[in-house]
Amino acid sequence: MTQPPPRFAPAQRVSKFEQDVWSIFTPLAAETKAINLGQGFMNFGPPAVVQEAAKQALDTVEANQYSHPRGRPRLRQALAASYSPEFGRQLDPESEILVTAGANEAMFATFAGFLDEGSEVICMEPFFDQYLPNITMNGGKPVFVPLRAPEHAADQTISSEEWRLDIDELKSKITPRTKMIVLNTPHNPIGKVFSEDELRAIGKVAEEHDLIILTDEVYDRLYYPPLTKFPRIATLDGFWERTITVGSGGKSFASTGWRVGWLIGPAHLIQYSFAAQTRVVFCVNSPCQEAIAAGLEASLTQPLFQDQTKAYLTKRAKLAKVFDDLALPYTMPQGAYYILVNTAKIQYPKDYVFPDILHQRGDDFKMCYWLTKEIGVCCIPPSEFYTKDHWPLAKNYARFAFCKTDDVLDQAAERLLALKKYIV
Amino acid sequence: MTQPPPRFAPAQRVSKFEQDVWSIFTPLAAETKAINLGQGFMNFGPPAVVQEAAKQALDTVEANQYSHPRGRPRLRQALAASYSPEFGRQLDPESEILVTAGANEAMFATFAGFLDEGSEVICMEPFFDQYLPNITMNGGKPVFVPLRAPEHAADQTISSEEWRLDIDELKSKITPRTKMIVLNTPHNPIGKVFSEDELRAIGKVAEEHDLIILTDEVYDRLYYPPLTKFPRIATLDGFWERTITVGSGGKSFASTGWRVGWLIGPAHLIQYSFAAQTRVVFCVNSPCQEAIAAGLEASLTQPLFQDQTKAYLTKRAKLAKVFDDLALPYTMPQGAYYILVNTAKIQYPKDYVFPDILHQRGDDFKMCYWLTKEIGVCCIPPSEFYTKDHWPLAKNYARFAFCKTDDVLDQAAERLLALKKYIV
Ligand SMILES: Cc1ncc(COP(=O)(O)O)c(C=O)c1O
Ligand SMILES: Cc1ncc(COP(=O)(O)O)c(C=O)c1O
Repeated sequence: MTQPPPRFAPAQRVSKFEQDVWSIFTPLAAETKAINLGQGFMNFGPPAVVQEAAKQALDTVEANQYSHPRGRPRLRQALAASYSPEFGRQLDPESEILVTAGANEAMFATFAGFLDEGSEVICMEPFFDQYLPNITMNGGKPVFVPLRAPEHAADQTISSEEWRLDIDELKSKITPRTKMIVLNTPHNPIGKVFSEDELRAIGKVAEEHDLIILTDEVYDRLYYPPLTKFPRIATLDGFWERTITVGSGGKSFASTGWRVGWLIGPAHLIQYSFAAQTRVVFCVNSPCQEAIAAGLEASLTQPLFQDQTKAYLTKRAKLAKVFDDLALPYTMPQGAYYILVNTAKIQYPKDYVFPDILHQRGDDFKMCYWLTKEIGVCCIPPSEFYTKDHWPLAKNYARFAFCKTDDVLDQAAERLLALKKYIV
Repeated sequence: MTQPPPRFAPAQRVSKFEQDVWSIFTPLAAETKAINLGQGFMNFGPPAVVQEAAKQALDTVEANQYSHPRGRPRLRQALAASYSPEFGRQLDPESEILVTAGANEAMFATFAGFLDEGSEVICMEPFFDQYLPNITMNGGKPVFVPLRAPEHAADQTISSEEWRLDIDELKSKITPRTKMIVLNTPHNPIGKVFSEDELRAIGKVAEEHDLIILTDEVYDRLYYPPLTKFPRIATLDGFWERTITVGSGGKSFASTGWRVGWLIGPAHLIQYSFAAQTRVVFCVNSPCQEAIAAGLEASLTQPLFQDQTKAYLTKRAKLAKVFDDLALPYTMPQGAYYILVNTAKIQYPKDYVFPDILHQRGDDFKMCYWLTKEIGVCCIPPSEFYTKDHWPLAKNYARFAFCKTDDVLDQAAERLLALKKYIV
């Protein structure tokens, strides 16, 4: 490659990006033929009703052409019908709902719509890795406050609800430049579903400092008993006025590759996410919007989400059992489809040789690399979800996804049992 | 709506956006049941082979899940196979091709990848309206240089090749902060296909000042005889090293709503568009990527693009004929699917009442509004494609799209003949 002249230099906003975790572990899983419990995509397709609707849409003329930048009317109607009871208010499909190119672009557009140079955004660690570049690319400064596991999490399996946010610590991070708090519930990678009380406390801080709340609820259709209801901050104590809620068709309907997501919130906030997103992507894939609409419509009369939850409960049990058998402590998730395992007791051979690229990363990158390559089960190092300073917090953890068919989870379990001889 | 508190203020980058032309004219066309020759989407679907491939992809598991952020391997291979002969070099699907969420997001990601606060980007007026916000949202400053029609264009129909760029005027716009020149060929709305000589002159300026060339070639499969070849600046005089070429599956395969586009260029440039786009959208709709790949593969052995060009030639002739019949001068396009008509001779009733929203816009907004509402054919005011200072340059123009079925163009022609009594 010829040496690029200086004028071809990248913008500052992209010049310091590290290689992301997916572009290391997804190819590694493929090369080594490891079972991929890494990236959070399904190895099964969307429900038949959704798939069928996508094909029908392809057969029409207009569902192959540009959609309204706010989203196709049918999808916005279906979102309003599905979410109005959840939000306890009649949602206006014209102004309170925006269809986006996945949850990822939904959040990018919201940061683009609200952050100026130096605006601070509070994120909880661990965080979904895209938040960080999405904030900095828009001039914002992420400010971190950790979710902490109790001490006994080192020896004992705990529930994700035991990971806690210290509200005083949250308050201590607020400055005159703070513009937004980002929340994620059900949480990736912890699986925590924030309780109403926790949400009230966070909302009160936002209210006191007049902050926007951006709540990433892409796993809102995946929470497990004994929870009977998924608490949403937008429905509590008048926080609606300051809250933008993010959803994902990919997560709700096993179609992560369709890139259909949405935002729900008051018109005075949604309008600016909309202003940005119209310029970033103009509009969202049309046939898949129709299909997600059909899925939401079907969910009003068929137990689609209930059946899905049942299926995921079995998957969670399968994966949890193998860590029980291995006596490795983990966090039992209340929602989403990840299990965070404490790997401190696993000892890989001391003379194991790792590729150079891993030496600049957290220690958990090595553990996950070894697990992928030698045990044949790909998992993800959660230090990717922490800022560099806090990588040590993640060093004893690995994230396993259970959004896979039962047979694949069974195979993974079998392979993982080979860990026994490395556990001290 | 409750008054939003000050902290809910938008980011500067979106706070000054005006309502875009599409959100005025697309609903207007629907309300008034005008024939919509406004926005550039087709009223027909993609070729059967492409549509069929989309359905097949939906039937697989993996084409419903996340794709590689660079694009699905099959699509990158197909793009390399289709474009390598066009570019006269073997394109590397790993590093010289990036699949994007439409051409729009391709350009957004490129601006995000290269522009810093105050970087200047030279654009030719008229320009595709999204360039302006895409540049400013990324801290860039658009600097404009006009394409000028010859004086006789006011009375006579001309060829789009007669619109010219003054190279000295281009040079006069360059400053130490200039980073990029944006080119668009075939040009929207003019239809101009830049000649090799013109491209050489532009490339030389870029070379002298070490600028990146971003060439928007979304209509590259749509150019008309007597042209037998579409000149690409990336293939001339070593400009490859500094050129990023933009393409669009929507334009090439009548699927504007699928949001599949691409970038082609040297690895040292593409890498930064890629860095940005991975964070903005993560990846692109998977099943439609497979379908566009199938279309490109088919085009290697079947005359897909040739047949499409033939069909568009008929459409162009139909629309051109009505302006000939009305003796309205226009620009006969060498490429793309728009006709720019000189409306100076049309006089709508002096007492016609326009909605308030049009009074802050160029005069051509009024003309196009009246044509849509009273003649029943929706067209687009091209001042949307100029900066405010230059709106008067567009005041006598209207843009009509001919990417419509023949019967719709026939109906439109019939309605347009009613203009006769308003022509002086
Ligand atoms: C917490 C969280 N937010 C957002 C996303 C992105 O969702 P989408 O695929 O809809 O962009 C993910 C995907 O894994 C996620 O885990
Ligand atoms: C010149 C030009 N560039 C880019 C685009 C956007 O293309 P896409 O739909 O692939 O985003 C258009 C669409 O009309 C266009 O005319």
